[in-house]
Amino acid sequence: MLQQEAGHTERELLASFERTSEEWFSLEEFQRLMRSGRQLRIKYGVDVTAPFLHLGHAVNLWMMRKMQDLGHKVIFLIGDFTTTIGDPTGRNKLRPIIPPEEIEANAQAFIAQARMVLRFDDQHLLEIRRNSEWYKDMPVQELLRLLSMITHSRLIVRDMFQLRLKQGLDIHMHELLYPVLQGYDSFALDSDLTIIGSDQLFNELMGRFYQEHLGQSPQVVITTKITPGIDGKAKQSKSLGNYIGLGHSPRDKFGRAMKLPDSLIVTYFEIYTDIPMIDVEEIGQRVEQEPMQCKLRLAYEIVKRYHGKEVAEQEFFWFQETFSARQTPEDIPEMTLERGIQTPLELLKLFFNGQKSNRELRRLCEQGGVSRNEEVLRQPEQMLELCDGDVFHVGKRTWFRVRVSGN
Amino acid sequence: MLQQEAGHTERELLASFERTSEEWFSLEEFQRLMRSGRQLRIKYGVDVTAPFLHLGHAVNLWMMRKMQDLGHKVIFLIGDFTTTIGDPTGRNKLRPIIPPEEIEANAQAFIAQARMVLRFDDQHLLEIRRNSEWYKDMPVQELLRLLSMITHSRLIVRDMFQLRLKQGLDIHMHELLYPVLQGYDSFALDSDLTIIGSDQLFNELMGRFYQEHLGQSPQVVITTKITPGIDGKAKQSKSLGNYIGLGHSPRDKFGRAMKLPDSLIVTYFEIYTDIPMIDVEEIGQRVEQEPMQCKLRLAYEIVKRYHGKEVAEQEFFWFQETFSARQTPEDIPEMTLERGIQTPLELLKLFFNGQKSNRELRRLCEQGGVSRNEEVLRQPEQMLELCDGDVFHVGKRTWFRVRVSGN
Repeated sequence: MLQQEAGHTERELLASFERTSEEWFSLEEFQRLMRSGRQLRIKYGVDVTAPFLHLGHAVNLWMMRKMQDLGHKVIFLIGDFTTTIGDPTGRNKLRPIIPPEEIEANAQAFIAQARMVLRFDDQHLLEIRRNSEWYKDMPVQELLRLLSMITHSRLIVRDMFQLRLKQGLDIHMHELLYPVLQGYDSFALDSDLTIIGSDQLFNELMGRFYQEHLGQSPQVVITTKITPGIDGKAKQSKSLGNYIGLGHSPRDKFGRAMKLPDSLIVTYFEIYTDIPMIDVEEIGQRVEQEPMQCKLRLAYEIVKRYHGKEVAEQEFFWFQETFSARQTPEDIPEMTLERGIQTPLELLKLFFNGQKSNRELRRLCEQGGVSRNEEVLRQPEQMLELCDGDVFHVGKRTWFRVRVSGN
Repeated sequence: MLQQEAGHTERELLASFERTSEEWFSLEEFQRLMRSGRQLRIKYGVDVTAPFLHLGHAVNLWMMRKMQDLGHKVIFLIGDFTTTIGDPTGRNKLRPIIPPEEIEANAQAFIAQARMVLRFDDQHLLEIRRNSEWYKDMPVQELLRLLSMITHSRLIVRDMFQLRLKQGLDIHMHELLYPVLQGYDSFALDSDLTIIGSDQLFNELMGRFYQEHLGQSPQVVITTKITPGIDGKAKQSKSLGNYIGLGHSPRDKFGRAMKLPDSLIVTYFEIYTDIPMIDVEEIGQRVEQEPMQCKLRLAYEIVKRYHGKEVAEQEFFWFQETFSARQTPEDIPEMTLERGIQTPLELLKLFFNGQKSNRELRRLCEQGGVSRNEEVLRQPEQMLELCDGDVFHVGKRTWFRVRVSGN
């Protein structure tokens, strides 16, 4: 590669990374790595509890994909050992212990999602490792040696631990060691770089600490930007349901994107799509005038990024037809019932199967968000005689058809 | 054994233990153990750094010896694994790592001293174990499992850790785990009882905790009384030189006992001898009138306990002849030293401060002209452990007394 081209590549990469990154430890070290000319080892550590990847996770994956495209290697590290402990990050409760077979199933499900972005097809560009490789047979003495290198005060300052202490909650001792184990992983993998959410910063800086103490060059750590979820409030999370998941269907992705508050459209373009920044700026100028048009484009770009142009176009037209015309879509789910008499609340509970709380469903009903054959049903406890083929409409975009098996 | 006899034995044992014990966890449990009729396993855990046993340690040994005499078994546990970590007890500094061969040599030196009290000659009554047996091959996962059972707050409350935190000193993470390891030892040995100094209480209660969590009956923990050293101030310790060591010669033991302040005579009788309590009380009544006579009896009893009646009598007469005859003048010069360890030659050089040549001093020494507390020192280069109050006699008419400032 010519010097000039290398410089060009580096500038492009940095410009692209700038859109999605928050902090660098450090930029100078990263530039030095990029100029070294060697294949870099990028640690991608994953604590495989029940997996669901959303656009926030994908930001990191896309950055790693860019590195793969430049010939660097992603080390996909399944934290099968550490998952049995559970990182206390963002949790106020002790994590339950997960059986090994579940960890393995979770890892496979994780890969199925990460595959939408990362190249898993070339051993030269991606290696799958497990941290049980070094922890399974590590003697206690070796762990104690690692522990002798750090102090209690250095670990306990971690924000998560401080929060628990303030709230009078327990920190179990194995949890206190979690950052040490995650840190040592970087040494075990000889990691050059890791790209993470800022909640992992403490643990990955521990990685730098151990690499330096054990005679390696410390890895570069890049943290990525975090946005509010599609509710415009907290960051995307499974429990809040306010995320766009890689595992969601194209239709679901599109629909979820369309729920975004207008104020976040530009941010989402910048961070969750790869359209040129010049286009993002242009959108920023017209978003107030044409928010719906901009949002449609956003939903389109998001679906396109994961499912390709064709699927994105289909979803774009489907959405427009359905909602612009306010018709009931043709291909809606059906629910078969044995009994033809139900209250609206009972029916909704059956349909949502725990995804929404009773309270939520009751309110939805009382506020006029539930209708049968276009007739609004405001009383959640009212007895309904159901007919085979009745169409229920819940909220804006959920429909289902009732089939009564009739006995 | 008849019930009546058993009851008698238990009462005697408890009366004897009462003289030297401080706290019981718990007395009821101990009584239940004694009545179980089975051979008890008594954990005697030793962190084998440079060994020196003094009368304070011997209190615990004598109590265990009583248990041996009743047929119970002492498990002499060499903390060869934990010694490599170092218990932070009573230390404000990180302990240096000790090489394995030194640990083994220390263990042998330890046994040589403990043998003066404990029976090491019968496998049925004493078993030697090392905690490397279970820690050497323990996987990290198992340690993490143990750690998951306890919380950070439960460990950090330990007085020693709190002291360090208050003083802004570091607690290294492996030190924080020390109580866990010492506690687990009790489980590994299936310990019924342990008799310890109160500085070990936290760690041994951790033993009860782990035994209960892992399905064993928790060991009974008895802490023993601690007295001031022979300087009447701090408890006996090597660094202060204010102790009577099991390794000291009979003459040295006798001489050290004679230095005790009168106010401690009765306490020392109660805790460091086994003469009947009725005799101790009688001594208590006359100690103010005849302190010297009482102290001679104390010194005699202490030497007798470790070296037998004959040796004790010899030392008694030697001491009387030498010191009662007041051959040493009262008004002799004193010399204050900072370090308690010197060779005779170094000491004489300091004292004569250039008035006599090195050659002269060396010759004087080699010809038997130098003695400490009437004990001739013929080797000018021999390392001496000096005690505050040691009297040196040089040639015919020169005496001086050593004061060790002890820091």
